[in-house]
Amino acid sequence: MNNNGKIYVVGIGPGNREQMSLLALRAIKESDVIVGYKTYINIIEDLTEGKEVINSGMKKEIERCDITIDEAEKGKVVSIISSGDPGVYGMAGVILELVAKRNSDIEVEVVPGITAANAAAASLGAPLMHDYAVISLSDLLTDWEVIKRRIDCAAAGDFIITLYNPRSKGRVTQIEEAREIIMQYRKPTTPVGIVRNAKREGEEVFITNLENMLKHKIDMFTMVIIGNTNTYKLNDKMITPRGYFK
Amino acid sequence: MNNNGKIYVVGIGPGNREQMSLLALRAIKESDVIVGYKTYINIIEDLTEGKEVINSGMKKEIERCDITIDEAEKGKVVSIISSGDPGVYGMAGVILELVAKRNSDIEVEVVPGITAANAAAASLGAPLMHDYAVISLSDLLTDWEVIKRRIDCAAAGDFIITLYNPRSKGRVTQIEEAREIIMQYRKPTTPVGIVRNAKREGEEVFITNLENMLKHKIDMFTMVIIGNTNTYKLNDKMITPRGYFK
Repeated sequence: MNNNGKIYVVGIGPGNREQMSLLALRAIKESDVIVGYKTYINIIEDLTEGKEVINSGMKKEIERCDITIDEAEKGKVVSIISSGDPGVYGMAGVILELVAKRNSDIEVEVVPGITAANAAAASLGAPLMHDYAVISLSDLLTDWEVIKRRIDCAAAGDFIITLYNPRSKGRVTQIEEAREIIMQYRKPTTPVGIVRNAKREGEEVFITNLENMLKHKIDMFTMVIIGNTNTYKLNDKMITPRGYFK
Repeated sequence: MNNNGKIYVVGIGPGNREQMSLLALRAIKESDVIVGYKTYINIIEDLTEGKEVINSGMKKEIERCDITIDEAEKGKVVSIISSGDPGVYGMAGVILELVAKRNSDIEVEVVPGITAANAAAASLGAPLMHDYAVISLSDLLTDWEVIKRRIDCAAAGDFIITLYNPRSKGRVTQIEEAREIIMQYRKPTTPVGIVRNAKREGEEVFITNLENMLKHKIDMFTMVIIGNTNTYKLNDKMITPRGYFK
């Protein structure tokens, strides 16, 4: 039944071409078909010459994955594109689940990429040098009560906290509630890094603190990194010490 | 005083050349001097022709960073190499702290890489599709009580838990204690992914569960990823559903 069709679930990293891995480049080059949300397709447009390109809109994740599997079952090599790492709030899980649901035997290779937390951290200095938690504030697919409990546990455990999807047009209060919860455990002076468009065109980097963080623009292109109780600001960098200079 | 010296803190990713970013390659290419622990230098040996290479031993992190700054202050471009991402238990923090301590004005650029958690996840399938915690079990620089509390909080918050440095020759019981703590919150059948040498030569991938995880070889080259209460095994993949198929 199978026929050399293959799916690459490709992480293109934060957006700048130089942050992409060699494997991501090769996977795209090898592919007959490229599928993805159009913002991401635009980023790699120059790599898609001569290939079939299937754009799709936001919130059409399942449709996009079904198209990917359809094309691969025709014997084509297909790359489905995620920004960052497809294994972190990306397309890797849905593809694997759908391939199984459809009893397909298509080969799937997940091509990891640099995820937004690590890209933003590099621009801030070294905020993630110690144990950290990765939390998405989007309650589209997850109950807000579950997310709040996670924020509470991460704050109680003194994790550095990285927040994905901190705010969108229709979802504005979650970041405020998250801050309230974390304030119960950490000082208002705790450093907070806010990075818009991390490691891609239009990057903006701010180091502020829990007290003042909401004065900054926070939207769906923003990563928020909240320090642990040891994180400090050093010149223009945000640093969590590992413990070498105790 | 400054003189075009520059430091790149370079993440070379998990080890396979194809997982390296274009920026990491360029930074190494641009550099006059390459500094690093010898295991990592060996991985990029073919890229160091004609460059000064300064190997150093394990646990010599401060010395390695001092040498890096010394060389950069002579006006050289220096890459100090970390495996994975230098911002995750790597060299980024120490370099930035030492540059400040020495009142140096050398430019430092952190070049992010694919960190072990994301590399291992890609080989397991899609275990990190939901909120996750990154914890190092090394108590060399952190009190074990702090680490235990973090494990407890991460387990209570139903985070997927990724464990760095799960075991070394001289440090064998931490992974056992970590498992005991997590067992208080999760079923013995909870999937556990164990990946040795993720995304580099000699990779070994196992999907087991909390009950049986200690029957597998776990050492300092191993990443352990413990699922949340929704994680499941699907054919030979470990998947945490995002929630699309509720």
